[in-house]
Amino acid sequence: MLIECIPNVSEGRRPEIVAAMAAAIRAIPGVRLLDHSSDPSHNRSVFTLVGDAAGVERAVLALFERAAADVDLRTHTGEHPRLGAVDVVPFVPIEDVTMADCVALAKKVGAAVAERFQIPVYLYEDASANPARKNLEHIRRGEFEGLAAKMATAGWAPDFGPAAPHPSAGATVIGARMPLIAYNINLATNRLDVAKKIAAAIRHSSGGYRFVKAMGIALDDRGIVQVSMNLTNYEKTPIFRVFETVKREAERYGVAVLESEIVGLVPSAALNAAAEFYLQLDRFTPGQILEHRLRQPE
Amino acid sequence: MLIECIPNVSEGRRPEIVAAMAAAIRAIPGVRLLDHSSDPSHNRSVFTLVGDAAGVERAVLALFERAAADVDLRTHTGEHPRLGAVDVVPFVPIEDVTMADCVALAKKVGAAVAERFQIPVYLYEDASANPARKNLEHIRRGEFEGLAAKMATAGWAPDFGPAAPHPSAGATVIGARMPLIAYNINLATNRLDVAKKIAAAIRHSSGGYRFVKAMGIALDDRGIVQVSMNLTNYEKTPIFRVFETVKREAERYGVAVLESEIVGLVPSAALNAAAEFYLQLDRFTPGQILEHRLRQPE
Repeated sequence: MLIECIPNVSEGRRPEIVAAMAAAIRAIPGVRLLDHSSDPSHNRSVFTLVGDAAGVERAVLALFERAAADVDLRTHTGEHPRLGAVDVVPFVPIEDVTMADCVALAKKVGAAVAERFQIPVYLYEDASANPARKNLEHIRRGEFEGLAAKMATAGWAPDFGPAAPHPSAGATVIGARMPLIAYNINLATNRLDVAKKIAAAIRHSSGGYRFVKAMGIALDDRGIVQVSMNLTNYEKTPIFRVFETVKREAERYGVAVLESEIVGLVPSAALNAAAEFYLQLDRFTPGQILEHRLRQPE
Repeated sequence: MLIECIPNVSEGRRPEIVAAMAAAIRAIPGVRLLDHSSDPSHNRSVFTLVGDAAGVERAVLALFERAAADVDLRTHTGEHPRLGAVDVVPFVPIEDVTMADCVALAKKVGAAVAERFQIPVYLYEDASANPARKNLEHIRRGEFEGLAAKMATAGWAPDFGPAAPHPSAGATVIGARMPLIAYNINLATNRLDVAKKIAAAIRHSSGGYRFVKAMGIALDDRGIVQVSMNLTNYEKTPIFRVFETVKREAERYGVAVLESEIVGLVPSAALNAAAEFYLQLDRFTPGQILEHRLRQPE
């Protein structure tokens, strides 16, 4: 069973503090810290770790212990919005694990964080049963500085923990979501209006696909434009459908697709779905992929 | 490091003998027996195992020990051509291993089989430096019954071992090759001539792609026809190119592709190549596939 967890911590300027957090995660057996990076202007660090449910839970609690000791939101400044010392903790299903498992884990970790550190916890995305509390930006609006007032208003009692912010660590948003895919399509034109029109056609907020965020931007150094996207659920809005729609919309303006690009990591299932679609594969199952088969128990 | 090995043994009628062979493979640490199946009319069993070079070597030698004790070619009958008790042993590179590693392993195992069991060994496919000795069917022609005479003729000295057949175990063909992909494309027509013409257009033997074997067959129960293929090197002749060529050739006869089908296992790299092609992915590397990343050392 493999769960990915990407905790975001409100500390990106003191490397020794971030290193101690990374060491706390690495010390947990059965967990691998794949990556961590800090942004001083955001004053924020992002950790990427994987493991089974028990290991990831222990690693997140170890991270909270470090952050609660070393981060004080009362003196924290930075460009990125934040509500807490550990600001947001998403759990992501990767292999042999369901979204329901990740939701259960988010609730278990949320209850443990509230009990052990007296930090209020808000559940978000798939872990939240409340439609008004699924969106991270919405929960985080007002930030740490506005948190005490926000928590006192109707509808903003936390899912776990005290009814007021932790003095130094604020509150934490914990949840479960699908892996994000950062996906860009470059167009063989310098017409920014075309990229913007296509982005508007495909993104959810303006009537497009349910799990697409998109904008049109200019790549000035190359003299071309790009439809830059986040695909937030590759199972329900697959890459190939987005690609084909962008290609078709571009044709309407006499513009060709130059290339596309996956930024960072992509689950193999998202690529396999594209192969299945284009090759018109019939009755194909993941069990037919040699490497998948090798990892199954006998 | 993962190497696949698919030894073919000339015994498919006595389940207790085959079970003892499977047990001998399973007893080797670090090796997994993924599958084995027997065909009584062929009087032949096929084992599929994976492991690192040392483990796979030990498992193959353990299998030879069982086969040399329990199989006697002098009394063996069956529909499938065969030269030896262990008839053919291909090593296939799967993950973090090169074809050169598999060639080296084939030679090492070949030398060990010759020394330990006094069985002559012919190298084939990528393991053979001799162009006249790469093709399995060519090496096997004449079968066990013609082997003594064949070995006495010029050009048929074995690569390892005695210059005459082992009395009961014959000779063995050991080599290294790419994974085979069994791939079929179904056409929305009942015109067998169309499937046959397309198969002729794409297969190597009649002027098509270097690593395609193909034939046109009728699927009578469905009233359609099929281009049935073996792709013998998916890196050099990729699935998507074969699919696109079949689709284009079918168009010329006014026929559509109904679906395609992968029979059995496929390496994930073969599917990823299709996704890269159709999505026009730029600068994509296997390291971007989440699951691949998870299996790398930190």
